[in-house]
Amino acid sequence: MANVLGKPLPRLDSPGKVTGETKYLNDLTFPGMLYGKVLRSPHSHARIVSINTERARFLPGVRAVITAADTPQIKFSFIQALADKYPLCTDKVRFIGDEVAAVAADDLETAERAIRLIEVEYEPLPGAYDPEKAMEPGAPLVHEESPRNIGFELHRTIGDVEEAFKAADHVFEDRYVTQKVSHCCMETRGTIAHWDATGNLTLWAPSQAPHTVRQEIARILNVPRSKVRIISTPAGGGFGSRLVSDMTMPVAAILSRQTGRPVKIVNTREEEFSTAKTRYSYVLYVKTGVNSDGRIIARQIKIIADNGAYNDKGPGTLAVCWLMAGLLYNVPNLKYDAFAVYTNKQYSTAFRGFGNPQLIFACESQLDAIAAALQMDPMELRLKNANQAGEVAPSGARLADCALVECMRKAADAVGWQEKKRAPRHLGDGKYRGIGMAVMSHMGDGGRGYGYSSAESFLKISEDGQITLVSPAAEVGQGAVTAMAMIAAEALGADVASIKIVIGDTDITSYDLGAWGSRTTLVCGNAAKAAAEAARKELVKAAATMLGAEPEQIEIENGVARVAGDSMKSATFGDIAHFAVSKLGVLLSGIGRYEDLEASTITKGHGTTNIAFVFACQIAEVEVDTKTGRVRALRIVAAHDLGQTINPLMAEGQIEGALAQGVGYALTEEAVEVEGRIKNPCFLDYKTMSAADVPEMDVILVESEDPRGPFGAKGVGEPGLVPTAAAVNNAVFDAIGVRFFALPLNAEKVYNEFLRSQVKAFSQKASG
Amino acid sequence: MANVLGKPLPRLDSPGKVTGETKYLNDLTFPGMLYGKVLRSPHSHARIVSINTERARFLPGVRAVITAADTPQIKFSFIQALADKYPLCTDKVRFIGDEVAAVAADDLETAERAIRLIEVEYEPLPGAYDPEKAMEPGAPLVHEESPRNIGFELHRTIGDVEEAFKAADHVFEDRYVTQKVSHCCMETRGTIAHWDATGNLTLWAPSQAPHTVRQEIARILNVPRSKVRIISTPAGGGFGSRLVSDMTMPVAAILSRQTGRPVKIVNTREEEFSTAKTRYSYVLYVKTGVNSDGRIIARQIKIIADNGAYNDKGPGTLAVCWLMAGLLYNVPNLKYDAFAVYTNKQYSTAFRGFGNPQLIFACESQLDAIAAALQMDPMELRLKNANQAGEVAPSGARLADCALVECMRKAADAVGWQEKKRAPRHLGDGKYRGIGMAVMSHMGDGGRGYGYSSAESFLKISEDGQITLVSPAAEVGQGAVTAMAMIAAEALGADVASIKIVIGDTDITSYDLGAWGSRTTLVCGNAAKAAAEAARKELVKAAATMLGAEPEQIEIENGVARVAGDSMKSATFGDIAHFAVSKLGVLLSGIGRYEDLEASTITKGHGTTNIAFVFACQIAEVEVDTKTGRVRALRIVAAHDLGQTINPLMAEGQIEGALAQGVGYALTEEAVEVEGRIKNPCFLDYKTMSAADVPEMDVILVESEDPRGPFGAKGVGEPGLVPTAAAVNNAVFDAIGVRFFALPLNAEKVYNEFLRSQVKAFSQKASG
Repeated sequence: MANVLGKPLPRLDSPGKVTGETKYLNDLTFPGMLYGKVLRSPHSHARIVSINTERARFLPGVRAVITAADTPQIKFSFIQALADKYPLCTDKVRFIGDEVAAVAADDLETAERAIRLIEVEYEPLPGAYDPEKAMEPGAPLVHEESPRNIGFELHRTIGDVEEAFKAADHVFEDRYVTQKVSHCCMETRGTIAHWDATGNLTLWAPSQAPHTVRQEIARILNVPRSKVRIISTPAGGGFGSRLVSDMTMPVAAILSRQTGRPVKIVNTREEEFSTAKTRYSYVLYVKTGVNSDGRIIARQIKIIADNGAYNDKGPGTLAVCWLMAGLLYNVPNLKYDAFAVYTNKQYSTAFRGFGNPQLIFACESQLDAIAAALQMDPMELRLKNANQAGEVAPSGARLADCALVECMRKAADAVGWQEKKRAPRHLGDGKYRGIGMAVMSHMGDGGRGYGYSSAESFLKISEDGQITLVSPAAEVGQGAVTAMAMIAAEALGADVASIKIVIGDTDITSYDLGAWGSRTTLVCGNAAKAAAEAARKELVKAAATMLGAEPEQIEIENGVARVAGDSMKSATFGDIAHFAVSKLGVLLSGIGRYEDLEASTITKGHGTTNIAFVFACQIAEVEVDTKTGRVRALRIVAAHDLGQTINPLMAEGQIEGALAQGVGYALTEEAVEVEGRIKNPCFLDYKTMSAADVPEMDVILVESEDPRGPFGAKGVGEPGLVPTAAAVNNAVFDAIGVRFFALPLNAEKVYNEFLRSQVKAFSQKASG
Repeated sequence: MANVLGKPLPRLDSPGKVTGETKYLNDLTFPGMLYGKVLRSPHSHARIVSINTERARFLPGVRAVITAADTPQIKFSFIQALADKYPLCTDKVRFIGDEVAAVAADDLETAERAIRLIEVEYEPLPGAYDPEKAMEPGAPLVHEESPRNIGFELHRTIGDVEEAFKAADHVFEDRYVTQKVSHCCMETRGTIAHWDATGNLTLWAPSQAPHTVRQEIARILNVPRSKVRIISTPAGGGFGSRLVSDMTMPVAAILSRQTGRPVKIVNTREEEFSTAKTRYSYVLYVKTGVNSDGRIIARQIKIIADNGAYNDKGPGTLAVCWLMAGLLYNVPNLKYDAFAVYTNKQYSTAFRGFGNPQLIFACESQLDAIAAALQMDPMELRLKNANQAGEVAPSGARLADCALVECMRKAADAVGWQEKKRAPRHLGDGKYRGIGMAVMSHMGDGGRGYGYSSAESFLKISEDGQITLVSPAAEVGQGAVTAMAMIAAEALGADVASIKIVIGDTDITSYDLGAWGSRTTLVCGNAAKAAAEAARKELVKAAATMLGAEPEQIEIENGVARVAGDSMKSATFGDIAHFAVSKLGVLLSGIGRYEDLEASTITKGHGTTNIAFVFACQIAEVEVDTKTGRVRALRIVAAHDLGQTINPLMAEGQIEGALAQGVGYALTEEAVEVEGRIKNPCFLDYKTMSAADVPEMDVILVESEDPRGPFGAKGVGEPGLVPTAAAVNNAVFDAIGVRFFALPLNAEKVYNEFLRSQVKAFSQKASG
């Protein structure tokens, strides 16, 4: 073996990034390129009475002004059955930022001026802002065709929760609320579109899913997919924000078709914060029935997801939450009711964890409260209920491997759980320390939520031994390129440095769903491995001929083939490839596929959408300054089951980056919305974790061996932030004895709630 | 079958070209791009005493000035054993235009100014200009290490020519001279190089051979091949001029490395005419022994090729001429001596026909004279000696198929050879008409002159039925993209419109020698066919599952699969691909290879370098105005054996384009050189055939069936111009009774020679 896997290799795309050679979308210009700008609705809900574009059209330098009338007016959503969004609004606007018109001009300044010259007459309508109120009869309807503003609902039942609640020794019932947060990618959304005179449309944009975006664009624009080409530019962050077509794409495309020129549209940071899609905010009702010994016997979960104005991935996140609801713990009775509800607000999309951080925040916060009520150690309570490898969850998910228990034990050992639990809480001067735990499960394969999840790679060995892997993997900063190279190198017995990866062009790479659901390593990785194995066979054959041996005698290591037992007979890959092409007339290459052979089971309505799952336990240590309300995360120990590690440096990097997002989610990040208007659309007012804020992070890679993963690997892209907010919340309770039911635990909230708890304690004491 | 082949489909790349969407190299700009300019030698032969770049360096806007000292100083030639050229001259310059220094500046004007500020002190040396004189002892040496200025020589003997000449009834001995001509591509040579901070070099340039150019560039710059990527931009003509790395490439690369910025260098038209490589001019001595019955029993050929200052493809053309020397006619005794001789002149490279037009001009002109001397019909003489399918030529070439005789008969029938031969020659007013014939053989597969000639393609069927073929074929305007699409469509049973072709990027396509030797159709076409067949198998399997049938029952036509005998059961490729990926978890694709399995025979020193050959007969009708000397080609009938026709429209286009070049070669085109200086470096003074000049062209596609070609096809890129000059020359003799031994037959030459012949006839008459 090449012994590549498990080594902390630096990322292959780092040199380009640190030297500035990597060209992002905004670095690109094309001859004759125009600059596009979108006119967005200033109203959260209004009827469009009229649009007059005449003044804008006559501004010198303006090349095109478009409204809905210039579009095919086909409603769109990622899941087409839930289509509800036009690229440009037709009859009404549904949120502040909704796309109304667009211009293309010679320069950005002219485009911005032109936008201000478009006259739109609106008739404001009452808006729906609170998703629970929006479901009440009589609430204003965001989409007239969706009564009670329900965009999607999902109901599932296993066993009989009502009977189980009656039988349970204790029943806990809580309401949790999670906030809206922004992806905060360093690169805002945008695209360059060129719809050329031959009828071919090319879109350059950072994309997590070029092929599915191609499908969407073709649908929105009503053209055959074969006329659309997506070229993914290097992404300055993704986190789910680049999975679905952004409306800049069809808008730029139409502007390009009208002008015959390439058109670039890139969001400003304010547009990105105010109008681009975010993480879904959820209201979660969690009711749990527990026996006195700690066994969870029933759980009922109700989620109201705030869709905002359009569906997008809201339905998808609710389906994932159902899958996750029964995955951590063996709960025999389970009821799940979920609603994606329209409001007149900025809408949301996929974001690292895909609904699961919200769910885990609620369930794992409650579990801590249950442990406290039962006077059990929260870890003991979790261990009692934890699922094990081989079990089948209520959703039908079969756990091929599961290192949940090991994650808990390793995290607890690392942090010194028992000692820390006994340490004093009050440090004096109003400062308290606390420790809290949360666990999580997540998908490690993306799954077949959209019906299929196969992948294909092509690998060739050039005449000088250079290896090229054409992979459908999407690189969004998570290290896909490096992971694919390492997997291929391992399978081939090659040097990683000899491998180039070609990605991100729908004309070249095979169909793939994209980089989501932590699926790239398993799905695309398996395809890379298979391609390398196919090429290796050919390489071995050629090497045998060259070295005068039988194929069985050939041993390969680090790009060199040797005849077993004959140290004199060896050849580099370059030698062999050159020999093959020049002497045998043979090129060395291979196609490799990952075929999701169980996919057909879904179509019959039983079985599960996923085959690989990952688990983790995180323990947070916090310090709460009750005089200011500020919570500082001091340390997070994160033990993650990721199957076999491809690259520990990258795996740790993924988890550390996620932890920073997770702590921000727990403590400070929030898109503050008042009647649909974002009040903090900039990094000054929207507080993410800076380098100075992040806690000490101890990442423990718990290696299981997933039977389906390439070399036993599973995904690790998302899970790092899934349990973080819950662990921090539980630690804050441990510190100050106050339970929080809404994120984030910002200073104002913590200060007030602590004060209230003191007042309450004082008054109870006084009245007692 | 799809019934795609043989149809006159328009080229797939035409819409881009007619709408202007196709972006050529000069249309491209990159952020921060600099403009490069090369300082060229004004001397044909001189020692470089000193170079002072200081004034140039201090010119504002200049970013880099380089001389040989900044280069790795590695000598280069396409065949590395014959290396003789530095990218920038070190000790001396060897032709007017030799690269001495280069600059990169913010704009082209500054670069041009900077070039003029570089001070070079030269010590002029006597030059060698005539290749025959250059071989004489004492001639100035272009390269001190090459005595007698011989860059390369090749000697071959079959049988015993001396004995055969003694035995022959007649021996004919003539000296022929061909001129230097320019490729006259509408797009001049150039490149954009970007050597980025991560050490990767990307070169954008129109290229006929991206992979071999990559090898060369890596060699010249002394970097691993894997660090070099060639992206071939659409080519505004090729004709052999873009087969070998142009010196702008390494020069731009070094300028880019020094500046860290992309650098563009594009030849001006004057540079292109004066300093870029041309067709080799040859001096040919042809001695032929014939029996009275017309049987050729011996032939001796001596070629002195004028290399110019460097070797380049000169040696290669002489090897091809040896291959061709015995291919047309069954000559038992053959002697071949060829020299590529250095002179202090612009050097040459591959050009459509690769030495063969020069050889055929000489041999076929002489054959006409032999026929006249024997009082035989020239066609009859050719038929008597013509090779047939199955024969083995002196070079070892085995003729798998050969429609030479059929070509002659069809051309003669079309033109009415016998009647035309009896028609009056003199039309009055000093005008004469004549008719002449020439035949040719050429390679139809590129061959294994460089050791190997395999190719590989990858074909995928997208989820909507769109087909992508990744092919190593190079599109230089010859229609490779369309031909590959048609071959794949035929093999797959698909619509041509559903096929996209990906080409021209060494990071993506597999290794391939390039578009030369008329090899693309056979070599890359076979790979495309095999890839399509592999994918078709998978498609059939999926279709069978989908339609509930056995694979053997599936019939495919025009992108639709049907169950034989059940008209209700059918599915489009899109349906099948979607079913495969979503229901079976299978992606449809295939790798296809053309493996040149006989290549190994070469390495043992016997056997031939080629496996497929093409043949043609052309008959020219001309009108000579003896009062002005002007020759007009009235009509050319060109009957070409191209195996099976892929696309008659394109095949005819290839032949017609070549005929226009061939007539120009015969009559007007010449790079006039005086002591190494080109005197006519512009289209005003260098006369190519315009639309008004070209003759009526009757192209007859003679279909044989090549057993190795894809669907029986062979190459057709080059042969169209190979016999044209000889046919025209023979027609001029037929018209005015004067034989010409040097090309071109321009007005001055024809006027003078005709006058001389009249004077001679008059004086013979007078003295008689």
